Formats: sequence, structure tokens, C-alpha cells
Amino acid sequence: MLVSRQTTVHPVAAPPLQVELAGAPPPGVWMNSPQGSAGTLGGVGLRLLQALSAAASIAVMASTGVFPSFSAFSYLIAAASLQCLWSLALAFVYIYALLVKRSLLNLRAMFIFSVGDWITGTLTLSAACASMGVTIVIDNDKKICAGNLCARFMTAIAMAFISWFALAPSFLFNFVLVVTTFASLLAP
Amino acid sequence: MLVSRQTTVHPVAAPPLQVELAGAPPPGVWMNSPQGSAGTLGGVGLRLLQALSAAASIAVMASTGVFPSFSAFSYLIAAASLQCLWSLALAFVYIYALLVKRSLLNLRAMFIFSVGDWITGTLTLSAACASMGVTIVIDNDKKICAGNLCARFMTAIAMAFISWFALAPSFLFNFVLVVTTFASLLAP
Repeated sequence: MLVSRQTTVHPVAAPPLQVELAGAPPPGVWMNSPQGSAGTLGGVGLRLLQALSAAASIAVMASTGVFPSFSAFSYLIAAASLQCLWSLALAFVYIYALLVKRSLLNLRAMFIFSVGDWITGTLTLSAACASMGVTIVIDNDKKICAGNLCARFMTAIAMAFISWFALAPSFLFNFVLVVTTFASLLAP
Repeated sequence: MLVSRQTTVHPVAAPPLQVELAGAPPPGVWMNSPQGSAGTLGGVGLRLLQALSAAASIAVMASTGVFPSFSAFSYLIAAASLQCLWSLALAFVYIYALLVKRSLLNLRAMFIFSVGDWITGTLTLSAACASMGVTIVIDNDKKICAGNLCARFMTAIAMAFISWFALAPSFLFNFVLVVTTFASLLAP
């Protein structure tokens, strides 16, 4: 009878539903950062693709020589330069994080990455679209578009679009990580 | 002895760690949808602002009469039409949800809203930027821009930009709600 009372008076404490491993992320956060987000090889690849295509866009547009006559083309060079610097800087940060084997899953860093991606992405997209509109207009005026000038404009614009398309997954992954990390901090 | 055996053989099931209130959101999700997201008065206001400014953009651009000569301006009318229809449709959905007092915090619905916002927003921004580039080019050629024609182009473009600026918070709120809801489903 004494044994029977002890089992009812001192019930076994409910064990935690899952064992917290050292370094395990809080609930609601991915176990591993998805490839393409900050601090992964996929992320480095995306950043280098953005930087290289932005640099190619600047080089092709600058080689035409007539870009200062059109404000949209000057704007494209400015926006692509900002994009190239931003992506190169983040590529170095990612590579450094990979080399020292540190996670970049830091709320403040991810937030800064997301906001920067949003700003540079909007600038690159708007510059590419503005240049596209201008190129289509001056393409009708064959006197301006001598030789393969318009084809070179188009190449520069296509490079800027590629840069934007490579930026979109970077932004989305980082933004999702920011939101999930922030939500897991708010969760009880 | 029989009683003692029964308590050890049939232990009491561990109670859930927190009581689920009827209608309470899962952990990690805001208690109330923030103003501006789906199914709130702020959301309806944002949607109506998007639809009205897109409609104004179409009206001003169509009133110029010369828009078919420029592909960027035709594209602006197409993108603004899509934006206007999308925002009006969602405004009606939000108003209906408010009238029947139902929450729109449904993962599938919010996901569709976010993806639609991304697509229409990108189209509207690109059309506005392309038209802006074209307007700046033809503004230099005063023969084309007789009277207040370029001012009317600029007005239509400004309306499209306002539509995009009103779309950005709608997209961000809905996307944050999608991610937090999805993360709370994944959490143990």
C-alpha cells in the first residue's frame, strides 16, 4: 500500500517534449539555413552572380560612350554600381563566415541584409526598366541607334535584370529567416 | 495491490503545456492582425488607395491619346489595369470578411495574396519606371511634348508610383503573416 501511495503523491514530472540540443535553433526556425541564405555556399554563389552581372552591365553600358546623353542610362550605371558593391561586400562577409564556420543567423545582421537587398533591388529593377523603355523608344529612331549600339544597350539591361533575378531569392530567404527568428523570440 | 498496479500501468497523460483558447492564435503569431494586413480596416484603405491611384493613372494616360505610339505607355496602362482589378477584388474580399466578422488568417489565402501582390507590384513598378525613362527622353524633344503633354505623362506615372508605394506595406504584412503562420505550424 505504501508503494501505491507514493506513485500517486509523487507523479513523475512530464518530460520535455523534445531534448534541446546544444546549438539547436528555437522552435519554428529551420534546423539548417536553406541554401541561398546568408552564410551558405548557395548564398555566396547568388551574391557573386549578382555582383558579376551588375559589373557586366556597367562595363557594357560604359563601353557605348553615349550613356551620359540619357539620364536613364546614367541611372542604370549608378544603380548597378551600388548593386555590385553591396553584393561583393556581402559575398566577402558570407565567405568569411564560412571560413570561420560561424553562423550568420543573427537577427540584426539578417535585418540589415534584407533592407539593403530591398533597396538595391528596387533601384536595380527601376533602372533596368527605365533603360528598357528608353532603348525601345530610341530603337525606333535608327539614326541614333547606329551599328550595334541598341544591342549593347539591351545587353547591359539584360545583365541588370539577371542581377535583380539573382537578388530576389537572397532577399526572400533572408527576410523569411528574419521573420521566423523574430517570431520565435516572441513565442512563449 | 490491485489499485497500486493500475496507477503504474495507466499513468496520467501529460497535460498540454498551455491551454488552447478558442480562437487564440498559435504561438509566434500576432494576437491581432496588424492594421494594413488582410481583413482589417487599414488593409481595405490600402487596397482602395492602390485601386484608385491605378485607375487615375490609366485615366490620365489614356486621356493623352498618344500612348499607343510608345510601348512603355501601353505597358503602363496594362500593368495599372491589372493592379486596379487585383486591388479592387481584394478590397471586396476584405470588406466581406469584415462584414461577416471572419478572419482572413488562412495560410493558403495569405500565400495567394502575397504572390499576387509581388507579381502586380513588380509589373506596376517596372511599367512606371519604363514610362519615366521614356518621358524624360521625349521631354528633351519639345516638338513631341506640345502643351502640357509631358506633365500629364508625369501625373500618370506618379499615380502608378503611389499605387506601388501603397502596395508595398500590403505585401510585407501579408508575407510576414504567411511566414509566421507557417513557422508556427512547423514548430513542435
